[in-house]
Amino acid sequence: MSKVKVSRKAHFNAAHRLYRADWSDSENDRVFGKCNNPYFHGHNYDLVVSVTGEIDSETGFVMDMKVLKSLIKNEIEDVLDHKNLNIEVPEFKDLNPTAENIAVVIWNKLRLHIDASKELEVVLYETPRNFVSYSG
Amino acid sequence: MSKVKVSRKAHFNAAHRLYRADWSDSENDRVFGKCNNPYFHGHNYDLVVSVTGEIDSETGFVMDMKVLKSLIKNEIEDVLDHKNLNIEVPEFKDLNPTAENIAVVIWNKLRLHIDASKELEVVLYETPRNFVSYSG
Amino acid sequence: MSKVKVSRKAHFNAAHRLYRADWSDSENDRVFGKCNNPYFHGHNYDLVVSVTGEIDSETGFVMDMKVLKSLIKNEIEDVLDHKNLNIEVPEFKDLNPTAENIAVVIWNKLRLHIDASKELEVVLYETPRNFVSYSG
Amino acid sequence: MSKVKVSRKAHFNAAHRLYRADWSDSENDRVFGKCNNPYFHGHNYDLVVSVTGEIDSETGFVMDMKVLKSLIKNEIEDVLDHKNLNIEVPEFKDLNPTAENIAVVIWNKLRLHIDASKELEVVLYETPRNFVSYSG
Amino acid sequence: MSKVKVSRKAHFNAAHRLYRADWSDSENDRVFGKCNNPYFHGHNYDLVVSVTGEIDSETGFVMDMKVLKSLIKNEIEDVLDHKNLNIEVPEFKDLNPTAENIAVVIWNKLRLHIDASKELEVVLYETPRNFVSYSG
Amino acid sequence: MSKVKVSRKAHFNAAHRLYRADWSDSENDRVFGKCNNPYFHGHNYDLVVSVTGEIDSETGFVMDMKVLKSLIKNEIEDVLDHKNLNIEVPEFKDLNPTAENIAVVIWNKLRLHIDASKELEVVLYETPRNFVSYSG
Repeated sequence: MSKVKVSRKAHFNAAHRLYRADWSDSENDRVFGKCNNPYFHGHNYDLVVSVTGEIDSETGFVMDMKVLKSLIKNEIEDVLDHKNLNIEVPEFKDLNPTAENIAVVIWNKLRLHIDASKELEVVLYETPRNFVSYSG
Repeated sequence: MSKVKVSRKAHFNAAHRLYRADWSDSENDRVFGKCNNPYFHGHNYDLVVSVTGEIDSETGFVMDMKVLKSLIKNEIEDVLDHKNLNIEVPEFKDLNPTAENIAVVIWNKLRLHIDASKELEVVLYETPRNFVSYSG
Repeated sequence: MSKVKVSRKAHFNAAHRLYRADWSDSENDRVFGKCNNPYFHGHNYDLVVSVTGEIDSETGFVMDMKVLKSLIKNEIEDVLDHKNLNIEVPEFKDLNPTAENIAVVIWNKLRLHIDASKELEVVLYETPRNFVSYSG
Repeated sequence: MSKVKVSRKAHFNAAHRLYRADWSDSENDRVFGKCNNPYFHGHNYDLVVSVTGEIDSETGFVMDMKVLKSLIKNEIEDVLDHKNLNIEVPEFKDLNPTAENIAVVIWNKLRLHIDASKELEVVLYETPRNFVSYSG
Repeated sequence: MSKVKVSRKAHFNAAHRLYRADWSDSENDRVFGKCNNPYFHGHNYDLVVSVTGEIDSETGFVMDMKVLKSLIKNEIEDVLDHKNLNIEVPEFKDLNPTAENIAVVIWNKLRLHIDASKELEVVLYETPRNFVSYSG
Repeated sequence: MSKVKVSRKAHFNAAHRLYRADWSDSENDRVFGKCNNPYFHGHNYDLVVSVTGEIDSETGFVMDMKVLKSLIKNEIEDVLDHKNLNIEVPEFKDLNPTAENIAVVIWNKLRLHIDASKELEVVLYETPRNFVSYSG
């Protein structure tokens, strides 16, 4: 049977800084520019989580949106919203919180809770003009 | 030759209700929550229809957008706009009008009118935060 | 001291029908067209509530957005979301639920809870292309 | 002669924290909630600057948008973008960087550079759901 | 009785060029920059037309949106859509088609067809970042 | 290792006309309708450029967004913005500037500057309702 993709938008606000502790200041500045501000800057991150699978013939759902909404709230928004990603989120202790890496971290967190028969995709907007997509 | 996907947005407003006649009220409430309101609720559905194929070297079109626009109007908007999906649209007489099922119904309706050499995709936004995609 | 306007967006989905019980069917059709569908249709209503007043020099707030968000949820979203406006919302028992009238009803409900020293404005989007504004 | 309002959108990303140094931690938490995170959080701020005046009959401009765009870049974006508002922007040394106060600070900075015959309005979006307006 | 503002969005695509025939090329370039391209450039103009008045107690309308939509189509879209403003629209024969001037022209055209008891406002987006407002 | 797609939005305004010099006027009118206006019309084109590849473990980037932004500016915006596509852009001397063909031209220009190990996709919005995608 053919598959349908269901998508849910969410969002969180966070501070971050791009840099490597093992690089010199000038190297950090050269590569990361103003994103390397040691006092941090921040974003309104928009997140689209998509789950692909067959429609359940009883409910008409691929996955109940209410369940997906709760999952995103518990696993992602409650963990990242109004946080400093570098300081307060353990995954970024030694991982640069670029949009690419944040998307992979979010995907890994959600993958544990999505039925293995279904595919998972994460799209993360750092700004309305910069965004990344990851499907595992 | 490489293929290009052309997409056209459309929209319609409709009322619906999620429930199964063969389930108890409490079972319907448990699964469908407030979407099971017997008096109905409604949405502004946004629809993106995409057709993928080779560019016609004469016109520079994969498919004339004016033709695609008319097709969506005649086959989808005129049939679903300002309607009660459960009561007035025959396809949902025995099919729960979830976003997933509506997208499949729309795809099936349009597929008949799109050249077989071309691929068809339907993205249906039930709200700006909930949407589904179907490609057959 | 100069005043600042603070605005908060919210949304709700509802079914409705435009008609007057004291008019003939043909008169209702002539004036309200397909909005007069007796089986109802529906919308994703977007709502912007704005409160204008002086900035509190202690907090830096005109009005705490968290308080405004809760007020909108309790007084408006919980009352209108996933409802049939004509049947389930008492204010529209004898009042046509046009966007104009819905905006006035929302404004009246919120006005009771906003400090009299502050001005209140409601903008209601029935669709992204049709919207109304009311300031009392 | 009648007046026209011309508006230009801009944006900047910044980190901030809401709190008062002269309040206890628990008082800060009670009033500012998670916005009081001592490690900061951040936003993509969207800014709309509007200037109202008569149309210059020679150019057809109220104010040259290219000039307004440069003014916003030099006076606002270069000063606030990728900054920590509390630590790096002198105006917020003793002023809570709420959306209301940021809007007033931006208005005051721009007012100096806009001809006195023209009116100035600033709309600042802290998130797509929270925004403030200030006209002096 | 209090007044409500009803708004309707529309759009048209057009080509234009900013310049004065009585100025030298270098003066046109200095003031209008790349908008002075003699081969023209173009925009997707978005238009919001707002009419303010009392709610008709019979219909619940300030003005029937279907009527407003038709009015905008007949008076504005049919006249400006897919046109070269400088060459094909008589109002711009001797008037620079800046966003400001286009908004005034549109307002003047619509004013003739809106009941005198109602106020009229036009907002014209030349791009999502540049827009103008005119209320007569 | 899994791949991530990074996307960057850009935009340009341009005039164009759809027609074939080797067709009669009536044939051009029949196929291209008002897009065949000999005086041109125009659009605000929105462009999303996406590059897919592995995350560089040093920087956390698939491709530095600052580099991608500059590339789009130099190769696309500086060449197409505020231009008449038919007259001023050599690629369209003998190629109809449909959205499909513009997307392919943009893709070909960018492909030369993107590392061969990475995939490239271009999405071009001619209007918010009409858009095309091309991946080579």
